[in-house]
Amino acid sequence: MSRTDDLYLELTRLLRETAVMSSCSNVLGWDEQTFMPEGGAQFRSEQLGLLAGMTHERATSSRVGELLAELEGSGDLGDPDGDRAVNVREARRSYNRSTKLPRRLVEELSRTTTLAQQAWVKAREDADFPVFLPWLEKMIGLKREEAQAIGYGAGVPYDALMDDYEPGMTTAEVARVFGPLRDELVKLVAAIHHSGKLPNTEILERHYPKTPQIVVAEAASKMIGFDFKRGRIDSSAHPFCSGFGPGDCRLTTRYHDHHFPSAFFGVLHESGHGIYDQGLPVDSFGLGIGQADSLGIHESQSRMWENFVGRSRPFWSYMYPTVKEAFPQALGSTGFDDFYFAINDVRPSFIRVEADEVTYNLHIMLRFEMEQLLISGDLKPADVPGMWNEKFMEYFGLAVPNDSKGCLQDIHWSAGLLGYFPTYALGNMYAAQFFEAAHRDLGDLDTAFAAGQFRPLKEWLNEKIHQHGKRYPAKRLVEIVTGQSLSHVPLMNHLKRKFGGLYSLKF
Amino acid sequence: MSRTDDLYLELTRLLRETAVMSSCSNVLGWDEQTFMPEGGAQFRSEQLGLLAGMTHERATSSRVGELLAELEGSGDLGDPDGDRAVNVREARRSYNRSTKLPRRLVEELSRTTTLAQQAWVKAREDADFPVFLPWLEKMIGLKREEAQAIGYGAGVPYDALMDDYEPGMTTAEVARVFGPLRDELVKLVAAIHHSGKLPNTEILERHYPKTPQIVVAEAASKMIGFDFKRGRIDSSAHPFCSGFGPGDCRLTTRYHDHHFPSAFFGVLHESGHGIYDQGLPVDSFGLGIGQADSLGIHESQSRMWENFVGRSRPFWSYMYPTVKEAFPQALGSTGFDDFYFAINDVRPSFIRVEADEVTYNLHIMLRFEMEQLLISGDLKPADVPGMWNEKFMEYFGLAVPNDSKGCLQDIHWSAGLLGYFPTYALGNMYAAQFFEAAHRDLGDLDTAFAAGQFRPLKEWLNEKIHQHGKRYPAKRLVEIVTGQSLSHVPLMNHLKRKFGGLYSLKF
Repeated sequence: MSRTDDLYLELTRLLRETAVMSSCSNVLGWDEQTFMPEGGAQFRSEQLGLLAGMTHERATSSRVGELLAELEGSGDLGDPDGDRAVNVREARRSYNRSTKLPRRLVEELSRTTTLAQQAWVKAREDADFPVFLPWLEKMIGLKREEAQAIGYGAGVPYDALMDDYEPGMTTAEVARVFGPLRDELVKLVAAIHHSGKLPNTEILERHYPKTPQIVVAEAASKMIGFDFKRGRIDSSAHPFCSGFGPGDCRLTTRYHDHHFPSAFFGVLHESGHGIYDQGLPVDSFGLGIGQADSLGIHESQSRMWENFVGRSRPFWSYMYPTVKEAFPQALGSTGFDDFYFAINDVRPSFIRVEADEVTYNLHIMLRFEMEQLLISGDLKPADVPGMWNEKFMEYFGLAVPNDSKGCLQDIHWSAGLLGYFPTYALGNMYAAQFFEAAHRDLGDLDTAFAAGQFRPLKEWLNEKIHQHGKRYPAKRLVEIVTGQSLSHVPLMNHLKRKFGGLYSLKF
Repeated sequence: MSRTDDLYLELTRLLRETAVMSSCSNVLGWDEQTFMPEGGAQFRSEQLGLLAGMTHERATSSRVGELLAELEGSGDLGDPDGDRAVNVREARRSYNRSTKLPRRLVEELSRTTTLAQQAWVKAREDADFPVFLPWLEKMIGLKREEAQAIGYGAGVPYDALMDDYEPGMTTAEVARVFGPLRDELVKLVAAIHHSGKLPNTEILERHYPKTPQIVVAEAASKMIGFDFKRGRIDSSAHPFCSGFGPGDCRLTTRYHDHHFPSAFFGVLHESGHGIYDQGLPVDSFGLGIGQADSLGIHESQSRMWENFVGRSRPFWSYMYPTVKEAFPQALGSTGFDDFYFAINDVRPSFIRVEADEVTYNLHIMLRFEMEQLLISGDLKPADVPGMWNEKFMEYFGLAVPNDSKGCLQDIHWSAGLLGYFPTYALGNMYAAQFFEAAHRDLGDLDTAFAAGQFRPLKEWLNEKIHQHGKRYPAKRLVEIVTGQSLSHVPLMNHLKRKFGGLYSLKF
């Protein structure tokens, strides 16, 4: 073995150990959300605090820094897209992010997050923005400091924050695609509104007993390719996907007796995340090649299975008989077209997480625009409700009745997750681009879906996306897989085709 | 603060941190047995291995050794039964046990345990003792080394092993009580056999659907005092109780559709362990005062609720109507006396874990006697089946048909748990002594039980036993609580009174 081999081996051993340690936190976090009795909460935070501290200590150890410096200086890392160079590059990225923030800032962010979330919960309950305002001010101040500490090249401070979730993506690039996307979406929403057609959504609010909901949701998850030998689905208040590590990926959902879509599409969504996680190369656990590429790419997988596949006509032409049989009382007299239209209802609404496939992206853009202004200092936190409500009228044509249905609805700002929102809409665009490419590569997927065949798409995603981990930054991955750079066009084509048909629109 | 205060504070902080780290392993271990998908097994052992290594590193750090030495030398620890002196004493005990074994021995024990268990599983499946023999020989050799490394004062090597599970208890003391207990038990079993009475145990093998089994078992657990706000019950192949730490204690059981006692009495048993765990002082988590006293004392709590309370006439006079209502098909036409007799069936059988309240202890004694001879070197592992079968005939009057129903039935020897078995029978004796003392202190408990009142007993146990943790070594605790030293008499009195009545015996 060469000296570089030795150093690389030592580095990967350290990285894997850090990832194993961090995965223990994931198990405890999952249990906290699913099964933990209420009395365990305080002690659980002590356990998680200790593990986090030990993981951080390992991730920032000076030995990792030395190994990285020597490896980078060796000129002996081979193909820059090869496993070794990628793993070193990603280790450097993550080492820099962990070591660049001064300890004081890390601790203040952690303290502020806890207190800001408590204030946010109260403020949202009472629709009382002033209760949250001082914490939002404090948080924005700290995130601006964070952006300075991380650095952002020739760009804007917001780049440094977004880079944590969507490595290599810049504010300018996102703005370039969000602009035309927003304009076209506003037009599409208006056209849908003026079509005068309205699905009967009461269909979805009938009585759907929990046990058959679990049965059909798990059957659908298995059908699209989530492997239950290497994962499972449980219930939690807020749905999530947590990949513990090789061979173990946990999904959660929530079941509502009188709302069919929550659990069913929630499970498809989380299954999309889970299939990605299960498709990462297990031997590279803890290394760049073994990790999901970006939040946007992750979201592209969940949105593809939830929306592009899961809300499509061919999917339901296969699935509807099963679901109808599982809920004879609710759906016995409901025809396919009515059901299919109901699950594709498009209408402007206040709450992002309840939004449909079309209006969802507008919710994101509004937040993206405001976050940039908050971080640049051009928007004062005190002016957030005013700008929110103004933009909401502009994009949705709706007057926000109170801040709980407006700028207080999301947890992200209180949790310090600034720069996170755009990845949701990027996910939708990536999904559309990938889906178009899959159709091109695989031929008639609609016929396959209508026959219950989802394996070709799943294996295509495994091969084109999952197995590469972080080999290519998201925007390059999109180019390699689809032959196109990031674009709003495939998403708009998909939405216009699908909803044009449903609402009898002419473009 | 004095210098001793400072040192003590540092020590308790380190001990608590080590305990928090170890509790993370408990969460992962619980998940492994309850919910983990099969694909997660390999990675789980990597997670647990890393946590175990880090916990061991902390537990054996030289700083702990320095603090202990200085504290012990300070002459400033106060009342030897006070919290501070006890916590230092117990920290020393555990530090010595962790540091006295040479690293080579620890690693060889760990490796051997894994391989010996694999061989044991295979050997038991095929009733093929020779497959297990080389591993038993290896394990006995290592445990003999361990006993030498730990040391055993003026006693015998077996003392050093037993001391790990039942601190301060010696082979001689156990033998002193086991001798007369064995003689009296053999006589009682014979008398029961000759009574000619046999309960109808078919009652318990009717169809008991799982859902109402869960309902009644959880209701009974709650009724005797297990706090579901600070714990829960799930299913696993092998029932256990795992106290994660303050406010979170997990129990498991297994449900058989055609065997009522498994889950019901299993839950009462584990609830007894759980109530003990929930009664430990939370502020002393990780310290001697916050830990269960010994395995024998732990078992006394589970056996008391399972057998002394849970298989008693007053308990069932309260509980039977509920259970009958939950299983109308199985119990609709079964009278109380028949049911009560069936759950108290006594008859010699081959398998320890299925044994009744009377014969159970004989299974233990046989193992206790053989383990001593194995560790002293007076019994060669190759001669284990012969001696087992001979003793089995002597104590039970049964010819062992094959080694799977004989010396291969238990996991303990393959897992290196030598010296563990006696704690089960000690638990029964302690339970009888405590139960007698509770009756003396609290008056007519039978009437209370028959009225569904279990709180007085539970609170008495909290006060007399649980809140003290490891303050008093088990045998002293028994003396303090009951005014008597360890004795087989209360247990025999209980068994003779109860089964004398059921089987119409004259003594």
